[in-house]
Amino acid sequence: MMKSREIRLRSRPRGTPTPDDFELAEVDVPEPGDGEIVVKNRVMSVDPYMRGRMNDVKSYVPPFALGKAMEGGAVGEVVASRAASAPVGTLVMSMFGWREAFVAPATSVQVVPPSKTPSVYLGVLGLTGLTAWVGLELVGVKAGDRVFISAAAGAVGSIAGQLAKHRGCRVVGSAGGAAKVALLTGELGFDAAFDYKAGDVAGQLAAAAPDGIDVYFDNVGGDHLEAAMGAMRPFGRISACGMISRYNDQRPEPGPSNMAMIVGKRLTIKGFIVSDSMARLPEMHAEVAPLLAQGKLHARETVIEGIARAPEAFLSLLAGGNVGKMVVAL
Amino acid sequence: MMKSREIRLRSRPRGTPTPDDFELAEVDVPEPGDGEIVVKNRVMSVDPYMRGRMNDVKSYVPPFALGKAMEGGAVGEVVASRAASAPVGTLVMSMFGWREAFVAPATSVQVVPPSKTPSVYLGVLGLTGLTAWVGLELVGVKAGDRVFISAAAGAVGSIAGQLAKHRGCRVVGSAGGAAKVALLTGELGFDAAFDYKAGDVAGQLAAAAPDGIDVYFDNVGGDHLEAAMGAMRPFGRISACGMISRYNDQRPEPGPSNMAMIVGKRLTIKGFIVSDSMARLPEMHAEVAPLLAQGKLHARETVIEGIARAPEAFLSLLAGGNVGKMVVAL
Repeated sequence: MMKSREIRLRSRPRGTPTPDDFELAEVDVPEPGDGEIVVKNRVMSVDPYMRGRMNDVKSYVPPFALGKAMEGGAVGEVVASRAASAPVGTLVMSMFGWREAFVAPATSVQVVPPSKTPSVYLGVLGLTGLTAWVGLELVGVKAGDRVFISAAAGAVGSIAGQLAKHRGCRVVGSAGGAAKVALLTGELGFDAAFDYKAGDVAGQLAAAAPDGIDVYFDNVGGDHLEAAMGAMRPFGRISACGMISRYNDQRPEPGPSNMAMIVGKRLTIKGFIVSDSMARLPEMHAEVAPLLAQGKLHARETVIEGIARAPEAFLSLLAGGNVGKMVVAL
Repeated sequence: MMKSREIRLRSRPRGTPTPDDFELAEVDVPEPGDGEIVVKNRVMSVDPYMRGRMNDVKSYVPPFALGKAMEGGAVGEVVASRAASAPVGTLVMSMFGWREAFVAPATSVQVVPPSKTPSVYLGVLGLTGLTAWVGLELVGVKAGDRVFISAAAGAVGSIAGQLAKHRGCRVVGSAGGAAKVALLTGELGFDAAFDYKAGDVAGQLAAAAPDGIDVYFDNVGGDHLEAAMGAMRPFGRISACGMISRYNDQRPEPGPSNMAMIVGKRLTIKGFIVSDSMARLPEMHAEVAPLLAQGKLHARETVIEGIARAPEAFLSLLAGGNVGKMVVAL
């Protein structure tokens, strides 16, 4: 019988997760029943939102179960099939997460076109790209907007920034470290960028966006959000995609001290979760796929090898160790 | 020559304003020139937004000038006229503020219908009513919404809450003190209300709105905003009208500690300033005037007598001393 290794949640982290919060286990993969397929994963995703699911709190998705494999996106190949819709060799995307292989009904996975780079279905053409696109759509990003994006060298931020550029915006990004900043203003074509670790965010943002900003694409919350509200022009819009700076907080940390600017500047802040907008995937593809095919969109990846290193990949992601999409090759 | 007394800004307050920040002065009112009118004010408005204008900071309106009369809404009668559009006896609304009388071009004031209660043009049929109405419109308040309103016994809150009830919402209000709470659930018809001074806001809100809230009409910011975000149902909307709890801050105070809920709950927060929506006054009248005429809308007022007591009225307003609209009768 086929074996699969998987990463399980061993304990709920307090604050920043550690390797001890995870455990590697080996399981048998049963033969497929009628309508089922066996999938061998080629690549799996680690994402910031997973940190929230490690806590035992009611949220928009239920918490991960202790002792069970971590859930999440993965792309793999069908290696055994008793389902006509997904014969052996089919590439499929699933949400069964951090495991090398699994058996499941063919109806519980999504068939995707063959690709030499299957990780694209986790990244720019998958949930990451959809997240970036929905976040721009939500606040109507259009030509002429002055856009600021935090975690701009990350999976979502790097795509959101490039799409905003293609829409005719002036785009400023923040990232951690000189190498990421160079990537932003180099290959990714941002108009300006700064290293948030090298000085105060508000001051650097004011220098990079001297006329202020119309849109803030928030991936981090905290002092970035406060600085962005301070830099906002009247009627500015904030797309609240994530607040990674807060995910490891063990107790509530104070929010922005300039909330009254929401009134004075007539700001709009909109939070979103990509899973509400799955039906818009074709719209996203219509804008993104041609840019990708023409080489006008750079989908950077950081790749870690092997299921055993998936926790390391996730911890590195939370610490900003990735450029572009962080994936684990299996 | 006619005399007028006026209240001037003597000094910019640090934190909570004091009577010493104001001064009473007497001036001559010149004879009207061609196209001009002399107006004797009958009633003037004091409003929370004026606190912001006392600071020397760039905002959506310029700061009040030191040594000049405080500006603001007033309704008065034309007592001398060289303008055909506003003969003697005409009732006019103006923004010239805290003074007993003034001379000005007839084009700089707005003629309003005769009324035994001219303060209605400062309150429910004026900027106060428009503020309440625009705040509801901004987040599309409709039948079935669970609505929470802070400073609900105040000028804007009391109208917003009653309008929401007439739209078919369940409405919860907060106010300071048992008498205001009794007014809310009594005459004003709120479904529930609590005294924010009598306990923690989050706990009392949870008890008053056990199923959570869809809409928060924010007049105060601070812990009310944090509590409202905590009580929000998915896709909840916040109309940010004012943040009076913050207006006297001398240094930035931390904001809500639960900002990440904006993402998880997919919240929308929209700030607004009523002066952007002056053109919608007729729409507001269409909804509000019939309710008022039918006695279905209670427009409470707190009246202070005499220009010399205008600073007292304003300071009392900031301390929550009013029920409904605070006006100064002249």
